[in-house]
Amino acid sequence: MEKKIIGVIGGMGPIATSHYMELIIRMTDAEVDQEHLDMIIYNIPSIPDRTEYILDHSKPNPLPEIIRIGKKLEEAGADYLCMPCITAHYFAKTLEQEFTHPFINIVEETAAYLNNKGITKAGIMATDGTVHSGLFQKAFEKYGIEPVIPSPEMQKNVMHIIYQNVKANIPAELDRFESVEKELKANGAQAIILGCTELSLVKRDEKIGSGFLDGMEVLAQTTVRLCGCKVKEKYLELISE
Amino acid sequence: MEKKIIGVIGGMGPIATSHYMELIIRMTDAEVDQEHLDMIIYNIPSIPDRTEYILDHSKPNPLPEIIRIGKKLEEAGADYLCMPCITAHYFAKTLEQEFTHPFINIVEETAAYLNNKGITKAGIMATDGTVHSGLFQKAFEKYGIEPVIPSPEMQKNVMHIIYQNVKANIPAELDRFESVEKELKANGAQAIILGCTELSLVKRDEKIGSGFLDGMEVLAQTTVRLCGCKVKEKYLELISE
Repeated sequence: MEKKIIGVIGGMGPIATSHYMELIIRMTDAEVDQEHLDMIIYNIPSIPDRTEYILDHSKPNPLPEIIRIGKKLEEAGADYLCMPCITAHYFAKTLEQEFTHPFINIVEETAAYLNNKGITKAGIMATDGTVHSGLFQKAFEKYGIEPVIPSPEMQKNVMHIIYQNVKANIPAELDRFESVEKELKANGAQAIILGCTELSLVKRDEKIGSGFLDGMEVLAQTTVRLCGCKVKEKYLELISE
Repeated sequence: MEKKIIGVIGGMGPIATSHYMELIIRMTDAEVDQEHLDMIIYNIPSIPDRTEYILDHSKPNPLPEIIRIGKKLEEAGADYLCMPCITAHYFAKTLEQEFTHPFINIVEETAAYLNNKGITKAGIMATDGTVHSGLFQKAFEKYGIEPVIPSPEMQKNVMHIIYQNVKANIPAELDRFESVEKELKANGAQAIILGCTELSLVKRDEKIGSGFLDGMEVLAQTTVRLCGCKVKEKYLELISE
């Protein structure tokens, strides 16, 4: 299979993009540089805040910049496009229309992964923007997966971990993380989606429990596969044990 | 100061590029995404092997592809260019001629950093290609810094760590690393340059001794500064203690 080039609309946030890049490299079954996949990455953290806009449309709209970058990536030769920022998938349907090449949708790939594993009830840890927009809930509907979302109090913990911990580059407060996990599992979640790329970094850097599925890992695995590289055996199973 | 865009000729190797990206983000004094710098990254691991070509010019030449990528970055709006691969700096003078925008040269920035710190004799840990081409030795000459290079036996250890350990994504054999360090220091090195981006990863992932200066960290710090962002206090001093 001919290798394809992935175009990455990145910088939302920048650490999430570098983490995605590292995941791709780690997951690829390659012994020399030349067996890795080619990527073109626009890491543009100056794109306006996604959550702010989704919650209040009078704030600066990130969409025009996202479209502009995607088109530049296509011109540069990208065969596939992706965006390692789940919140920004609020705009995914528009992007799928705007771009000529396939857009790898984290949310839909994650729902499909859960469905393949036989999960019928899944918790969601994500930004206010993602939860309010019903992004995962809609993708779950297709497969009849029932969503479990945090109570308002627990959602505050999720936002605190994303904005006050990870984006500020300080260690996650795990007691907050575990209290959310406990509530979601008590409400019947068989698995919990880490539906925000900053939460992927918590999974990378801290010891967390079982049943977590990181949307970013799903995106990375899908990218490696679609671009014609082989996924290492140990990255085929993505739900934490 | 207006923010500038850095264009990155990457993928040599891919892990080194993602590490450079992470260093930039970590070193930037930013509290929100929008305070980070904008980067355009071509991560193209399919570029032919640099060391192979430098040692044997009948092998595929990576230079045309490097120039092509640099020009694409300029067209895309990059204000500065850089290449997180020290071995490929073998071609730096040609690149400085070919590109319209300034090329941030790791080797020269590293020599300047040593000079600013009053170092007059420095060890070099780098690929065969870099050592044979005299890349650092020439840059040192300008400042009257005396180079200390490993014996042939120790150079084999350096190459083993780069190719059999880091590029193969397995932990570095630290006994090999320390034997090189010991020899270079015994021969008078006041500081030792990690002159290959794979060796930067050893510094990131393992506990190593004092006196090491990572060329990649010098590049990242210089990039943050030139692109108009502030370097965090703790990343101003780069020689390990």
